[in-house]
Amino acid sequence: MIETTKPVEIIQPQVSPTPSQHQPQSRLDPITQQWSIFAPGRVERPEEILSETEKVDQTVRCPFCADHEDQTPPPVWIGRLPGTQNDWSVRVVPNKYPAVETAHTKSKAVQNDLFQQQIVRGGHEVFVESRQHIQSIADLDLAEVLLLFQAYQDRLNHWRKVDGIEYISLFKNVGAKAGASLCHSHSQLIATDRLPAQTLDAFENVNRHRQKTGCCLQCDLIRAELKAKKRIVWNDGISVAFCPFASRLPMMLRITSAEHQACFEELDQTTLQSVSRLVHRSVSWLEKLRPGTAYNYCLNTRPPGITDTADAFHWSVDLFPRMNQVAGFEWSSGCMINPILPETAAAKYRSIAKSEDPRSALSS
Amino acid sequence: MIETTKPVEIIQPQVSPTPSQHQPQSRLDPITQQWSIFAPGRVERPEEILSETEKVDQTVRCPFCADHEDQTPPPVWIGRLPGTQNDWSVRVVPNKYPAVETAHTKSKAVQNDLFQQQIVRGGHEVFVESRQHIQSIADLDLAEVLLLFQAYQDRLNHWRKVDGIEYISLFKNVGAKAGASLCHSHSQLIATDRLPAQTLDAFENVNRHRQKTGCCLQCDLIRAELKAKKRIVWNDGISVAFCPFASRLPMMLRITSAEHQACFEELDQTTLQSVSRLVHRSVSWLEKLRPGTAYNYCLNTRPPGITDTADAFHWSVDLFPRMNQVAGFEWSSGCMINPILPETAAAKYRSIAKSEDPRSALSS
Repeated sequence: MIETTKPVEIIQPQVSPTPSQHQPQSRLDPITQQWSIFAPGRVERPEEILSETEKVDQTVRCPFCADHEDQTPPPVWIGRLPGTQNDWSVRVVPNKYPAVETAHTKSKAVQNDLFQQQIVRGGHEVFVESRQHIQSIADLDLAEVLLLFQAYQDRLNHWRKVDGIEYISLFKNVGAKAGASLCHSHSQLIATDRLPAQTLDAFENVNRHRQKTGCCLQCDLIRAELKAKKRIVWNDGISVAFCPFASRLPMMLRITSAEHQACFEELDQTTLQSVSRLVHRSVSWLEKLRPGTAYNYCLNTRPPGITDTADAFHWSVDLFPRMNQVAGFEWSSGCMINPILPETAAAKYRSIAKSEDPRSALSS
Repeated sequence: MIETTKPVEIIQPQVSPTPSQHQPQSRLDPITQQWSIFAPGRVERPEEILSETEKVDQTVRCPFCADHEDQTPPPVWIGRLPGTQNDWSVRVVPNKYPAVETAHTKSKAVQNDLFQQQIVRGGHEVFVESRQHIQSIADLDLAEVLLLFQAYQDRLNHWRKVDGIEYISLFKNVGAKAGASLCHSHSQLIATDRLPAQTLDAFENVNRHRQKTGCCLQCDLIRAELKAKKRIVWNDGISVAFCPFASRLPMMLRITSAEHQACFEELDQTTLQSVSRLVHRSVSWLEKLRPGTAYNYCLNTRPPGITDTADAFHWSVDLFPRMNQVAGFEWSSGCMINPILPETAAAKYRSIAKSEDPRSALSS
């Protein structure tokens, strides 16, 4: 009862030129050595199922607003802006629902070849970015953003010194699609006693590049991006922003320092100021391009667990809106399908940056 | 102006017992060698931002319904149920918006240390699972599901023979959160000329186990799950279903054959019938536990690109609802945070299976 038509597709080894802008192509991320597939034609798909904009439950009393401090554990860090009478401007508190065990004991791993488990220890903290119920970092003023970035440096420095900590992830989730459960502008830090395999793999790749060439891979990438001019969005000589060549997600923007620096915590005040302004600007570009979008940013700094030839690493912030889903193919293969080429994404960011400030440091 | 309280968390190396059900713990997936973090306490978080609900755009004319065949490219496979007068019951067509290049040329890789790109070639097909506008595979009858699984086998067999194909992914996306753009019940196949790094890594792990023990790792896992009884959901002697020990996503269910088999395409008719019924059942359990949920399933079969000691592989279907998001921590670390232990998930599936059919093959 089953009728099968004869095979219609046979791959012939004829050689054609470089992929055009419209052909599905795979690109290799030199840092992670992961391939992503770019399929620009897929943006034209008809969409029958529409995502509605997210709803906010008005009955939840925001635990991050000023005068609600009793809703969170006591702060581990407090920052006040100069001249303010308030007792805090930025506040860091332990997460009430931690993803890691914060108690002071250490468990043995359960040794079983098939079923290995271990308590994962460390810290999980929340950066409350404003006293007001502000929902976007773009609505903070520059002094507040700088204070937040100083909080990032201080808490990273703190966790780096804690015995047993191998890895620190610092990130921001905005919107339900990006994994946020609360609206009030905040970011998070998770420190763990385990170095993720993905981080170790990436470090081995950058280290191999350094041994081969004597250079930092990220520094080489920045030089190549500045030369190519296709994916660069911002360069003021201190900080740079570009859309990575093999971005796993559409519209991803990478922000880092033009000068080599392995650890974000070691940036000097001038660079920190420039970087915090650029992250603030980048979020505002993204919000203009995609109003109401859910997004994440992740701050990558040299993990405490990596000490050998640690200078091969170069810190960065990756900012990305959540436009598509990790679907069946991506889960089974680990390979992302990205419908927007980074050259297209960079052109969009450059155009919005130029409209904001015609003298902006776009192509210097 | 910044005041920092003194560090409050120091990890002390005191030994405590095995992780309790409520402590955050990491578990190692023996097949992928990836750690996942289980943090059951995080289900209690307050949620101010409510997840988006989906809306269906009624103006989109479904291209998969009977009599709309002109909306898709001509079929590459057609299956008819016995006794029907219709010209098709299940239909496989090339995807109109392919993620891979389906033309008959092969490009050279662009050789540049920093920026490597290559056209990715292969096939992208859609399995239209019904003539009717049915939205769930659970609404198909068992003969239709068996026919669909025969289509899976035939198309996998077809692509396995195509010169240059290294990897085939077969998957189902249901709901916007799972990456679907159309409602009509369908699944997809993507065949590529590139073996994903994640697949190769997993194969190296199962192969290492086989060399060390002489056994298939998945077979050993099934035996261990049947013995432990905590995560097993179904066992009728032909097919089994269990919640994997280190599931990356909550409520993940793995379905496979009790007997060793590397390739799904090589299952005999009896096993295919049992497996297709179990997948059908599993989706219906999931839909009863979480009505209207978005979900994926992914069929893993030995990739054509792996031929050496290929028998170390064991096919499976992984079914998982999309309850949480891949957020900042997960993107930066590659490590998933799962709020539901697989033991809890398995108990839920067993309880719904038992309520459906008290004689069900739950604990045999």
